[in-house]
Amino acid sequence: MNLQRIAREIREFEGVTRKKPIADLINIFESVRSEYSNCVVDFGDDAAVIDIGGDDYVLFAADGIWARLISASMWWAGYSSVLVNVNDIAAMGGKPVAMVNVLSSDNKEASKELLRGIRDGVAKFGVPMVGGHLHPDTPYTSLSVAIIGTVKRGCEIRSSTARAGDSVIAACDMDGRMGPNSPYSFDSTTMKEPGDVRAKYRVMQTLGERKLVTSGKDISNPGVVGTLGMLVETSGVGARVELDKILAPENVDFVQWLKVHPATGFIVTSLPENESEVVSLFESAGYSAACIGSIEDTHRLDICSGGKCVTVFDFKTDTVTGITQ
Amino acid sequence: MNLQRIAREIREFEGVTRKKPIADLINIFESVRSEYSNCVVDFGDDAAVIDIGGDDYVLFAADGIWARLISASMWWAGYSSVLVNVNDIAAMGGKPVAMVNVLSSDNKEASKELLRGIRDGVAKFGVPMVGGHLHPDTPYTSLSVAIIGTVKRGCEIRSSTARAGDSVIAACDMDGRMGPNSPYSFDSTTMKEPGDVRAKYRVMQTLGERKLVTSGKDISNPGVVGTLGMLVETSGVGARVELDKILAPENVDFVQWLKVHPATGFIVTSLPENESEVVSLFESAGYSAACIGSIEDTHRLDICSGGKCVTVFDFKTDTVTGITQ
Repeated sequence: MNLQRIAREIREFEGVTRKKPIADLINIFESVRSEYSNCVVDFGDDAAVIDIGGDDYVLFAADGIWARLISASMWWAGYSSVLVNVNDIAAMGGKPVAMVNVLSSDNKEASKELLRGIRDGVAKFGVPMVGGHLHPDTPYTSLSVAIIGTVKRGCEIRSSTARAGDSVIAACDMDGRMGPNSPYSFDSTTMKEPGDVRAKYRVMQTLGERKLVTSGKDISNPGVVGTLGMLVETSGVGARVELDKILAPENVDFVQWLKVHPATGFIVTSLPENESEVVSLFESAGYSAACIGSIEDTHRLDICSGGKCVTVFDFKTDTVTGITQ
Repeated sequence: MNLQRIAREIREFEGVTRKKPIADLINIFESVRSEYSNCVVDFGDDAAVIDIGGDDYVLFAADGIWARLISASMWWAGYSSVLVNVNDIAAMGGKPVAMVNVLSSDNKEASKELLRGIRDGVAKFGVPMVGGHLHPDTPYTSLSVAIIGTVKRGCEIRSSTARAGDSVIAACDMDGRMGPNSPYSFDSTTMKEPGDVRAKYRVMQTLGERKLVTSGKDISNPGVVGTLGMLVETSGVGARVELDKILAPENVDFVQWLKVHPATGFIVTSLPENESEVVSLFESAGYSAACIGSIEDTHRLDICSGGKCVTVFDFKTDTVTGITQ
């Protein structure tokens, strides 16, 4: 493997680079952070964790759909808006409860097709769309969806809590197919029964409630290595990834797979003694899962193969999101 | 007063007409409504009401910012995104808890100005922005914000529960000024201390907890009569409005005022015996408030003056949102 080329491809992949402006912008909120009284977790995690006083914390997240995806397929954009939000809640070890959306479009047919995609996502993932706001008169089509979920107090899985010495486990539902609308997307839900899909997500609740993982994040646009990069950056640590241990579907180019956003995939970290239990819980739920490396105190993310390593991100000089907690 | 002209102006006002496509689109969700198991209230209200099992219900709403407002002033669009979401929660008798946003823009300066507006809104209204999603590469600038709040179980104020015989009360903070970015906007918050602004919103919680109102809604883009139109349509009733009783700020044209979106204004209905207590609670909180009419079983919204009435909306043939519950 040409490690230098792979490191550069990941570093320069748009799914990674488009995360850079985040920290620059959210720093604007520093001066009003004192208002965040009942917020346990905020920026840098897949969902905010809010204490409203009950047995469960409320999880709260939002996702927009990338304009490029919207122009590829309205139905897919609507469906994906549900999928990515469900992933945000699952990544935290939570149970999704309800969504709201803001849809802007002056194209009635496009809006209907988007909403059909949302409807089919609601039916698949079992999370209702309970409200929204429609702008029927914008010259572009855009869709934003927010979701709330619940998680047992203290059982939330965060992405800022990985510690040196932890094992890194990647789990992905590989029973699916590339596409349909992007060379960096892998669909593993549209062809399955709702019950099967929902059961697969519940493994993250189990991992959280049994305190088997130290951190976690869903694998999204930056791909498996890029997502781990965000996790270690937010946690203020480093990681070493053994590329040869990353599982990939047959008939998919390995380097391309590293940039793929799988429909159902998670990166988690665990204490080494819990690693095999975590892997087998994922496997029992139908995932392909493996330990792919370890968390280090290096502030670098290195990819390794055949005893050689190359640095993908050096967080002393690089940023993915720039968010640290 | 030329009642016919006023009725036509309200009916044809863009703040009203742009609500029409809503029902057509949300009907797509009918087939998956069975999934809405723990949702007490959904479309048609200012916020969805979700039962997650605690003492409080969770309120959940989303609002986008009208493209026209974004092009007028980025700061104002950001600030208003907080204001309109706080209004959605207040309208339900709730307490705002946290917000998330989706920001799309390839214009870094525009994004920063929008976020400065949001930051100043957070500081004013005391509701934290706890997460979000940034699309740094869209050829347009759009902002969507979602909010959660809490309300004591059973104390939520809905907009579908007005009944014939109820009094209609309009309350508005008239200590402000027209504009700044639209002839249909009235600012009553930017010039006031955060504590004053937040106290003003709490009157809706008091009204809900003391069960003094039968329904309510914040006065938004459709203006005072248009907003009442949405409320009576959703409630499946009618209303008679005495134009001469609608209070308006000095030096503002009365017909223009009917189309204004005030920063802080609510329409509520109450049993006639509670009308004076509701009005005086609003007045104590600094609002100008008055009973402006009554709920009727007519399925029409009529405006009246000097003993003459004209129909603005006949819900047998007209729709505002088309949502009925």
